[in-house]
Amino acid sequence: MPRFRLDIEYDGSQFAGWQHQADQLSVQQAIEQAIERFCGEAVRIRAAGRTDAGVHATAQVAHVDLAKAWAGDKVRDAVNAHLQAAGARIAILKAAVVADDFDARFSATGRHYLYRILNRRAPSALEKGKVWWVPKRLDAEAMHEAAKVLLGRHDFTTFRSTQCQAESPVRTLDRLDVTRAGDLIEVRTSARSFLHNQVRSMVGSLRRVGDGSWSAADLEAALEARDRAACGQVAPPDGLFLVGVDYPQSAGQTG
Amino acid sequence: MPRFRLDIEYDGSQFAGWQHQADQLSVQQAIEQAIERFCGEAVRIRAAGRTDAGVHATAQVAHVDLAKAWAGDKVRDAVNAHLQAAGARIAILKAAVVADDFDARFSATGRHYLYRILNRRAPSALEKGKVWWVPKRLDAEAMHEAAKVLLGRHDFTTFRSTQCQAESPVRTLDRLDVTRAGDLIEVRTSARSFLHNQVRSMVGSLRRVGDGSWSAADLEAALEARDRAACGQVAPPDGLFLVGVDYPQSAGQTG
Repeated sequence: MPRFRLDIEYDGSQFAGWQHQADQLSVQQAIEQAIERFCGEAVRIRAAGRTDAGVHATAQVAHVDLAKAWAGDKVRDAVNAHLQAAGARIAILKAAVVADDFDARFSATGRHYLYRILNRRAPSALEKGKVWWVPKRLDAEAMHEAAKVLLGRHDFTTFRSTQCQAESPVRTLDRLDVTRAGDLIEVRTSARSFLHNQVRSMVGSLRRVGDGSWSAADLEAALEARDRAACGQVAPPDGLFLVGVDYPQSAGQTG
Repeated sequence: MPRFRLDIEYDGSQFAGWQHQADQLSVQQAIEQAIERFCGEAVRIRAAGRTDAGVHATAQVAHVDLAKAWAGDKVRDAVNAHLQAAGARIAILKAAVVADDFDARFSATGRHYLYRILNRRAPSALEKGKVWWVPKRLDAEAMHEAAKVLLGRHDFTTFRSTQCQAESPVRTLDRLDVTRAGDLIEVRTSARSFLHNQVRSMVGSLRRVGDGSWSAADLEAALEARDRAACGQVAPPDGLFLVGVDYPQSAGQTG
């Protein structure tokens, strides 16, 4: 069966997260239903990042096996038409046949997230659900400086959900940059993989640095505590976007 | 009574436009209700631009007279709290006392609009209602070149709604720029004032240039026809944002 790679954008506020839920609509289920309406096949798709409820994606990657080697553009347009008809805020940006050994989750060598904080007195009218509104003034430069203590290989027990199913709490953080443009603070972070709630936990703790209640040393102490209770507030899902997934150049090449 | 200038952001998709409607919620009414909840006064506010249903604003300007000379920040925060409680996607960005002769509508010397077109095969998942989705490839450079025929002082009868109540169809267009950044085409336009539906009518006609069905000469002929029937499709409200209003430096200064 030909394997397809799907590049996917979605508005997470409509969904109970990427992954199947017994009684709530997930992004995965909405796409699987649209595919079934297109080609009649009951499929199971697998994604690079199992985003939580309310978390968005501009560049999620998934794979699916279909019976026929459809043209990629045909799959993209037909599945989008069914998603639109269902009122799902999901768009297939690209669909293409890839090699059978391409696995959206296990072939991925890097994941990139963006977290957006709206830092002004007035709430957001235009981007409700797509930013974390923090009215108190934050020092983005202090956040950026402090973030450096989290870079590299660490035990991130403090910054993972107690629900996290990963075997090891050790991860290597390659990037954690904080920049301000006007009222918007952007946190950009990259790693081979992240623990459950890791980005939101790091952002919630960085916010404490930004409002002056934590120093960089406090952030380092939280990391070294290896204790979930040492984490600052977990930032809400609203501001979080999966913005990129890396694969080795060889991965998924056909022919 | 002290006069306040309000700088306002809103998501127009929730509302029947800026102006009062008998049976539908308008932006104006939502703000007037929030002000009444704050200070108990039944007020009437006036805005620089009476945006249509579905049109957004990042920088609308309005004025209102209140009995007390409240601190501006107090007005902003209190009115925002009432707007939030009502579930209205409207935010007062700034409130400040201005001179009695400041009139948000009649003192304005310039208005700036942005129109956003998402030009890709896949619909928008993340910005539904905030872009015009045009799947067919558009030539933004050709649109920009053709747009020059509309610059300057003209009779814009072709590009105004038959409902337009302005006495004269003559306006002076100061800016009409079309640029592309990836899949997004932005049209930026400025004038002292615009006719009803003028921006959306110009954008709908420019789209015809972009997809090759009109030449720049066709656009010029449409302008010169001074006939509403010569207009291309009127672009939907979704992509339109009021992004700025100019006032003379002296206007509204207190003291």
